[in-house]
Amino acid sequence: MENERTDIGSLGEFGLIDRLTGKFPLSQASSIKGVGDDAAVIDNEGYLTVVSTDMLVEGIHFDLAYTPLKHLGYKSVVVNLSDIYAMNAQPRQITVSIAISNRFSVEALEEFYAGIEAACKVYGVDLVGGDTSSSQKGFIISVTAIGQGEKGKICYRNTAKVGDLICVTGNLGAAYLGLQLLEREKQIFLSKPGGQPDLEGKDYLVGRQLKPEARKEMIELFAQNRLVPTSMIDISDGLASDLFHICNQSGVGAFIEESGVPIHMDAQLQALEFHLDPITCALSGGEDYELLFTISPNDVEKVRYLPDIFIMGEVVDARDGVRLHTKGGNIHPLKAQGWQHFES
Amino acid sequence: MENERTDIGSLGEFGLIDRLTGKFPLSQASSIKGVGDDAAVIDNEGYLTVVSTDMLVEGIHFDLAYTPLKHLGYKSVVVNLSDIYAMNAQPRQITVSIAISNRFSVEALEEFYAGIEAACKVYGVDLVGGDTSSSQKGFIISVTAIGQGEKGKICYRNTAKVGDLICVTGNLGAAYLGLQLLEREKQIFLSKPGGQPDLEGKDYLVGRQLKPEARKEMIELFAQNRLVPTSMIDISDGLASDLFHICNQSGVGAFIEESGVPIHMDAQLQALEFHLDPITCALSGGEDYELLFTISPNDVEKVRYLPDIFIMGEVVDARDGVRLHTKGGNIHPLKAQGWQHFES
Repeated sequence: MENERTDIGSLGEFGLIDRLTGKFPLSQASSIKGVGDDAAVIDNEGYLTVVSTDMLVEGIHFDLAYTPLKHLGYKSVVVNLSDIYAMNAQPRQITVSIAISNRFSVEALEEFYAGIEAACKVYGVDLVGGDTSSSQKGFIISVTAIGQGEKGKICYRNTAKVGDLICVTGNLGAAYLGLQLLEREKQIFLSKPGGQPDLEGKDYLVGRQLKPEARKEMIELFAQNRLVPTSMIDISDGLASDLFHICNQSGVGAFIEESGVPIHMDAQLQALEFHLDPITCALSGGEDYELLFTISPNDVEKVRYLPDIFIMGEVVDARDGVRLHTKGGNIHPLKAQGWQHFES
Repeated sequence: MENERTDIGSLGEFGLIDRLTGKFPLSQASSIKGVGDDAAVIDNEGYLTVVSTDMLVEGIHFDLAYTPLKHLGYKSVVVNLSDIYAMNAQPRQITVSIAISNRFSVEALEEFYAGIEAACKVYGVDLVGGDTSSSQKGFIISVTAIGQGEKGKICYRNTAKVGDLICVTGNLGAAYLGLQLLEREKQIFLSKPGGQPDLEGKDYLVGRQLKPEARKEMIELFAQNRLVPTSMIDISDGLASDLFHICNQSGVGAFIEESGVPIHMDAQLQALEFHLDPITCALSGGEDYELLFTISPNDVEKVRYLPDIFIMGEVVDARDGVRLHTKGGNIHPLKAQGWQHFES
């Protein structure tokens, strides 16, 4: 992957931090002090500060066999920014902490930070701090994102109301199918080393897995159209699991139309090739980083003309549970799925 | 350590988060929303937001052979709060992310969170978010602390001026000697399993290592006495290393009097027992979490009457370097030491 290989130990902690983060300029007016002191300093006057944090662990959340380090850096930032957008807020700063074993070279880490830098540029956020440590095994990444939201416009998970419409951005299930493709190619490679991965024509699905984007433009669209969702969450664990978060925290139920759940044509076809039901991939796949939100029925005209937003159901009474109306005309109760790391 | 043993997998991620963090109330007026949404929400109007983050890795930063999990939780918070105080700011919120292998039980994690809760109470901060993940090996902790500072009173590392006095709080070297004691007892235990550790009379040194405190009261003393240090850092890597940070970033040198470096009597005696030079332990030991700061010579009368603060030197021109005037009358150049995790 790299031509040079500089041992991490040859730089020392501060040399390493300087080499990795020295080129990150501060571009946000609110970033008073970035990397290089005990703490970063942020001027947030008149706004609410919004903070989100995520940890990514090699072997659990990512597999370096098929994840380029630059993509990993990019994705590590994006998954956190997605949480800030899901509050209807704008991310401004991030901190990035990593723990790494000696098997990584300085050049490999520079690739990772190049991805972080790319995400910082695309989303207009500043890297303002972090920590660099060694690990006994593997690569562990912890990112914290800090954003600003306007008072009265922050969107929580516990404020959906019966009668609200349930909306989603983009499409669902593609990232999960991209992961299945990468896993399949990895298994083939492991059984026949030297073979080339066959991912031709799979760019969209693989891209959704390796280089997801957060829905910055949706938050801007909401503001332009004076729309404040009644509740919002980003879809990281899968539509069903994240819908349950809104329902449980809001004390409501949901009625979803299968025909309203957006699935990309590539995902449809790939699911069928894998003998999977496309709607199951959309409901339980995860890592879509789309926004799932509810709106007042009075706001339906605002949403109707916004691109890439789909109305797929309605908030109902908690007694009616969370149900799916299938294209075949059946009504099924949904089950929350998703994160099961600890199950053996 | 525990009587019950509940597998982490039996609770699932959200059950685990709820069990660990459900009892943490929000006490800060600025904490609008805590754990349970995509992000925490903080009202910081009129103040500067200060953010610091640290990662602690099992086998690198702590050894569970002699670190009780409750102490570990407490220390994980304290080392971050120390960074906020070192900015002359007040911590208000923390996020805690952990990655853990299956060998930990839910009860063990509850011990860890009991330590976090104790630190939150002592320092008056709210736990407002985090992430819980599995790891392939060991226990990894990432804490982010968020604080508030007054405009014009934040203390940076790069603002020390020639002629300023160099001060330090408390005493130095004790945490390092506590670690040496714990390591010695561990080695004895490993060579003769079943033996009891002999740490009688070593409470102070061991306590400084296992349960350090951050210097909250010093920041309050500064405010009461209208003292704003010209620069400040917390001593985590050791006096010499952290003094170099101030000198390098401020473009100055330093002249330290060995007689002015505070060393606790227990540390003095323990160093001699280990055939170590007490001043070396104080200069290079680390993990003291005391505050190293510089003040204008005009403020010397303010400091003179404050308890537990020691004037130990003067900021000099960068050309004169960073030097130590020993009790024996010699003048030695100091070397930065400290963090060397990656050296094999």
